[in-house]
Amino acid sequence: MNKRPIGIFDSGVGGLTVFREIRKQFPKEDIVYFGDTARVPYGPKSYTTVSAYSIQNARFLLQRGAKIIVIACNTSSSVALKQLQDSLPVPVIGVIEPGAKTAVSTTRNGKIGIIGTEGTIRSKAYSREISNLKKDCRVFSQACPLLVPLAEEGWEDHPVTTLTIKEYLKPLLEEEIDTLILGCTHYPILKEAIQKVVGDNIVLVDSAEAVSKQLYEILPDKENEGIGEDHFFVSDNEDKFRQIASRILNIKISKLIKVNLGESWYLS
Amino acid sequence: MNKRPIGIFDSGVGGLTVFREIRKQFPKEDIVYFGDTARVPYGPKSYTTVSAYSIQNARFLLQRGAKIIVIACNTSSSVALKQLQDSLPVPVIGVIEPGAKTAVSTTRNGKIGIIGTEGTIRSKAYSREISNLKKDCRVFSQACPLLVPLAEEGWEDHPVTTLTIKEYLKPLLEEEIDTLILGCTHYPILKEAIQKVVGDNIVLVDSAEAVSKQLYEILPDKENEGIGEDHFFVSDNEDKFRQIASRILNIKISKLIKVNLGESWYLS
Repeated sequence: MNKRPIGIFDSGVGGLTVFREIRKQFPKEDIVYFGDTARVPYGPKSYTTVSAYSIQNARFLLQRGAKIIVIACNTSSSVALKQLQDSLPVPVIGVIEPGAKTAVSTTRNGKIGIIGTEGTIRSKAYSREISNLKKDCRVFSQACPLLVPLAEEGWEDHPVTTLTIKEYLKPLLEEEIDTLILGCTHYPILKEAIQKVVGDNIVLVDSAEAVSKQLYEILPDKENEGIGEDHFFVSDNEDKFRQIASRILNIKISKLIKVNLGESWYLS
Repeated sequence: MNKRPIGIFDSGVGGLTVFREIRKQFPKEDIVYFGDTARVPYGPKSYTTVSAYSIQNARFLLQRGAKIIVIACNTSSSVALKQLQDSLPVPVIGVIEPGAKTAVSTTRNGKIGIIGTEGTIRSKAYSREISNLKKDCRVFSQACPLLVPLAEEGWEDHPVTTLTIKEYLKPLLEEEIDTLILGCTHYPILKEAIQKVVGDNIVLVDSAEAVSKQLYEILPDKENEGIGEDHFFVSDNEDKFRQIASRILNIKISKLIKVNLGESWYLS
């Protein structure tokens, strides 16, 4: 059991911010990462479609022996967590609950902001989770569809990025939030740019860090003596995946395999 | 034969700029439009994947009786046109050739710029087509991955869009192009913003207009007495499709059906 890997999936490259935190926290665990780069992005897609994709991705990780599955994608966590938890034989954790918990324990004035993809925001998953944890918090949310492409373009410190962040965050800043959840696994790439816009008085909650902490609490054996191997799988365009991983995230991708769309798990 | 519809497909909503021109040109023809909104965008995906998707989309239009197929997507035209022409029993036209022809007949100094998605630019399809038509043209190209999300966000006249266009077009302007191909069917949405940045001395070639003109030349019967019905199909998120169509493109979407991913044509 111990030797089986931790499974992580995301719609693409964004979940690597979660991978990075988990790798740091668990240097000896093997990790299998699947990025669904053929069907990225999940953000603008319907719940039915995102659910169907998430189930296929999780099944693929199970076939690779995963002992636990981390949904490193906010859209997918918002929409498919419960369904995966109910139907899979291993524990499944998403990024919403850990992010919401951290935000609730961080805020002083009870005003929490959330930014994410259209899918994540539309689902109201963070608002629900926060209101379960603490009734008197107020939540202000904003979909930011341009931030993922900006992060992938590598424009972390470009004036366009600053201007875009200002535009999106204006209504949240007017509400005087003191805590802002980065509700998309791409956003940690833009953390510095976002912090500059909101100023030092607003605490940013990075869901990658939060989920890694939660995983540490629930992973059965923390004394794994493995050598910490990484295996990456994508459904398309491995070159672009490798390039963004090294250029923006400073992650060296060793073993990377493109999974053929024709394989039966994908179409089942 | 005459009564059979014109089939148009795109990765999503961008091809509606082509639909709009074709509808204008052929008021009495029936049109079937398919937008692959479950798998959008095609721009960053590999050739193999874009080819496979394009074939599935074209087959769907054939099943709906299309007498001719218009690939209203530059990425797909770059990658899959020849394959579709060789394998389908009806004529297939893409957006590359008409755009290239218009550009070659427009340029005075022989310096043509092309902007498009990563997939379109990487394929060098425009450069090849232009050099076939006129040996002594020089072609300068630039991938602009942020323009599609900016167009979909509806930020046509936002400072962020102007700044982004300036950044992308800088190297092309330095080469003193006099003609610029809008090599993505989303870009006509940003036409005014692009024209402002490049100034009045550079002619913009809109591939939607160009393909509609080519279609007029080759469509067997121009005297169709139909009533010009529209049928729209998408693979996901019909609300968003309808919303962008009406908000940005001023197209009223009447008959819109979401095609179920589980249907066999999709998975074959």
